[in-house]
Amino acid sequence: MASLGRHIIVEYYNCSSEILNDVVHIEKSMEGAAEDAGATIINSTFHHFSPYGVSGVVVIQESHLAIHTWPEYGYASVDIFTCGDTVNPWVAYQILKEKFEAGHGSAVELLRGEKALLKERDFDIKAMRDEKSSEEGSPIRTRDVWFTERDDKIALSLKHDGKLYDVQSDFQKVEVYKTQAYGNLLTLDGMVMTSEKDEYVYHEMITHIPTLTHPKPKRALVIGGGDGGTARELLRHDCYDEVVMVEIDDKVIEACKEHLPGIASAFDNPKLNLIVDDGIKYVKDAADGSFDIVIVDSTDPVGPAEGLFTVEFYKEVYRILSDDGIMITQSESPRFNSKVFKEIYQVYRSIFGQDQVHCYLAYIPTYPTGMWSFSYSSKGKAHPLKDFNAEESKAFAKKHGLKYYNEGIHQAAFALPSFVAEMIS
Amino acid sequence: MASLGRHIIVEYYNCSSEILNDVVHIEKSMEGAAEDAGATIINSTFHHFSPYGVSGVVVIQESHLAIHTWPEYGYASVDIFTCGDTVNPWVAYQILKEKFEAGHGSAVELLRGEKALLKERDFDIKAMRDEKSSEEGSPIRTRDVWFTERDDKIALSLKHDGKLYDVQSDFQKVEVYKTQAYGNLLTLDGMVMTSEKDEYVYHEMITHIPTLTHPKPKRALVIGGGDGGTARELLRHDCYDEVVMVEIDDKVIEACKEHLPGIASAFDNPKLNLIVDDGIKYVKDAADGSFDIVIVDSTDPVGPAEGLFTVEFYKEVYRILSDDGIMITQSESPRFNSKVFKEIYQVYRSIFGQDQVHCYLAYIPTYPTGMWSFSYSSKGKAHPLKDFNAEESKAFAKKHGLKYYNEGIHQAAFALPSFVAEMIS
Repeated sequence: MASLGRHIIVEYYNCSSEILNDVVHIEKSMEGAAEDAGATIINSTFHHFSPYGVSGVVVIQESHLAIHTWPEYGYASVDIFTCGDTVNPWVAYQILKEKFEAGHGSAVELLRGEKALLKERDFDIKAMRDEKSSEEGSPIRTRDVWFTERDDKIALSLKHDGKLYDVQSDFQKVEVYKTQAYGNLLTLDGMVMTSEKDEYVYHEMITHIPTLTHPKPKRALVIGGGDGGTARELLRHDCYDEVVMVEIDDKVIEACKEHLPGIASAFDNPKLNLIVDDGIKYVKDAADGSFDIVIVDSTDPVGPAEGLFTVEFYKEVYRILSDDGIMITQSESPRFNSKVFKEIYQVYRSIFGQDQVHCYLAYIPTYPTGMWSFSYSSKGKAHPLKDFNAEESKAFAKKHGLKYYNEGIHQAAFALPSFVAEMIS
Repeated sequence: MASLGRHIIVEYYNCSSEILNDVVHIEKSMEGAAEDAGATIINSTFHHFSPYGVSGVVVIQESHLAIHTWPEYGYASVDIFTCGDTVNPWVAYQILKEKFEAGHGSAVELLRGEKALLKERDFDIKAMRDEKSSEEGSPIRTRDVWFTERDDKIALSLKHDGKLYDVQSDFQKVEVYKTQAYGNLLTLDGMVMTSEKDEYVYHEMITHIPTLTHPKPKRALVIGGGDGGTARELLRHDCYDEVVMVEIDDKVIEACKEHLPGIASAFDNPKLNLIVDDGIKYVKDAADGSFDIVIVDSTDPVGPAEGLFTVEFYKEVYRILSDDGIMITQSESPRFNSKVFKEIYQVYRSIFGQDQVHCYLAYIPTYPTGMWSFSYSSKGKAHPLKDFNAEESKAFAKKHGLKYYNEGIHQAAFALPSFVAEMIS
């Protein structure tokens, strides 16, 4: 190439005004065009201006795409700037013309950084880096790439050093990022699932509380939990003869075995019966009273986990529990998903009985609001605090070097802030 | 103007290679150039590519600025795209030329969206909006602007509808954002301080725990706490004859009175003695044993609050406490600020005694990791759990309609996850 960069300057005329005012459509179109042109997206930012018009930029590994729209004129200006020779900017030009339903477009290509005008320097990056490091006491940062989970109003971003796994399974997008703060991070459809550095909170709290309050659990069922952490913690308890785990998506298992091996460490345990199938179907087909503990270790109530948040499903769980059986579910964040949180507690109580359902909390920094809830629903007499032996609990936590759960936390987790207690009262 | 936008296409040659590889310098230069040119910055994203080179975009209300650098050629390509007539792109051109120490530069101006080629449509945005609303059940979003608090590895972003207050005080940058998730939000130097929707957690927990465990507190001192929330909660207790509050920055008080009036509601209480001055100096000058409760309601250990995290300061606090006095401080996030967290507990224990210092926790969704800690240091016999009367506590919480604190939370807050307990053991 005769230049460092190619810059296509584009004008689209007579576009659909409605499309040019639809920030979601534009963002998708721009990102899709970048990917189809062969670019690697680093991040993007789109804004809808009042009263109308959209601005946005997609930053790609190979430079950027930018757009500004004037719906009232049916006009959009687009810049497609690429460097290297792996991206064809004209592919993006053509895709966007169609996406915006442009009557016509004009485009000129500029060469940026004409090589005939430039001279390559003897550029000692290593020396510069060392110099910089000694100044600041830490190595110069070489990349600045963030994973972001966002809803309409809140976003959490984690800086990472790259993506280790990226597969579209039959059910969802499965990704693993190498984050700087939390180690390797599993995401499903862009939502944080678990990370190496804080997974123990969730997995210790979802397993030891039921196990240490049930008279003598022998069989446990885990619905979901494909990362393996829940199975790993359950199998610390010698009382179990069998732990059945039904995960719908084998790609989740694969991703975690490869990139979160500390979480996926129990897959070879002979007491684990791993079934790759639909958990809803499994529960429906299971025999009455066949499990002492059922743990619903699901994602949020969208995508493949949606059916795990229905009355029908919980009724089936109730049926397959033994007389003193306990159901544990992750029950979302009271602050973030307050609607779902309230609704599912109503459902649990309608099935298990008003006083048989208890909520408990744990601090999970990578989940929205940092406050996460679990539900403890008891079919028989098991009670999360009355049937709890502090000495036994303390010994267990110590023996296994648990990092979150201990006898004090066991009790404290059930103390709810007044606003949370009120939500489910 | 004859066009919708002006686009300056810039090439800088013979720049400093070192500068072109310094992502922080480039980000600051680009943002500064945008502001000096008259633009309003919406957000920006900069990335340092391995092995070298920086890409970045500043999205402005009036379009964007983009840069890609090739340090090994001493070359940078810059695009400055503006619309409207309030921004002069050539100002930015000149500033960046100097910032990058460019030997020479070239630039051409393109007109984007030539008006002679465009026809304004009869564009009924209201109808489109209504249509869109009825489709999705919610109004079309008209802006997408986010406040972000970030450190090197983690960032929390909150979408807002604009900035209500923006003053550079003698001490810090004081801002109030109108966020969608948490109501009005006070930030100091870009760090979240308090928000309307979750402030009660912090303020209830920092005040009621000491007040309800001290035999009979009559005088309390609050260092910092300029939003007024701590004073407001203390003054719910009739036992106090006086609450002295020493806030260094009157702009914080002003911002909160104007924009967070629910938090700043106690400034007119006759029992409140509000002093705008340096809290460190105030404590130094105060008489021995003159306060029953001292609450250090500070920002993080940077900026004006730095002196509130020193051994000397805590020794002075100890001195001015009465015999059964209690010091409460916010003690950062164990996960996020683990170094500071560990250090200050060592300091507290060296001053108050090994068994006189207790840590307690609360869920604060707008603070990093969502887990925040407080310290309870007792000069005399007061103990946070032994001297706690659950019935009294329950009645108090009920009477005042508290939203977080209750008798269960009082006890549960002192149960520490094992990894936190270990950090300060």
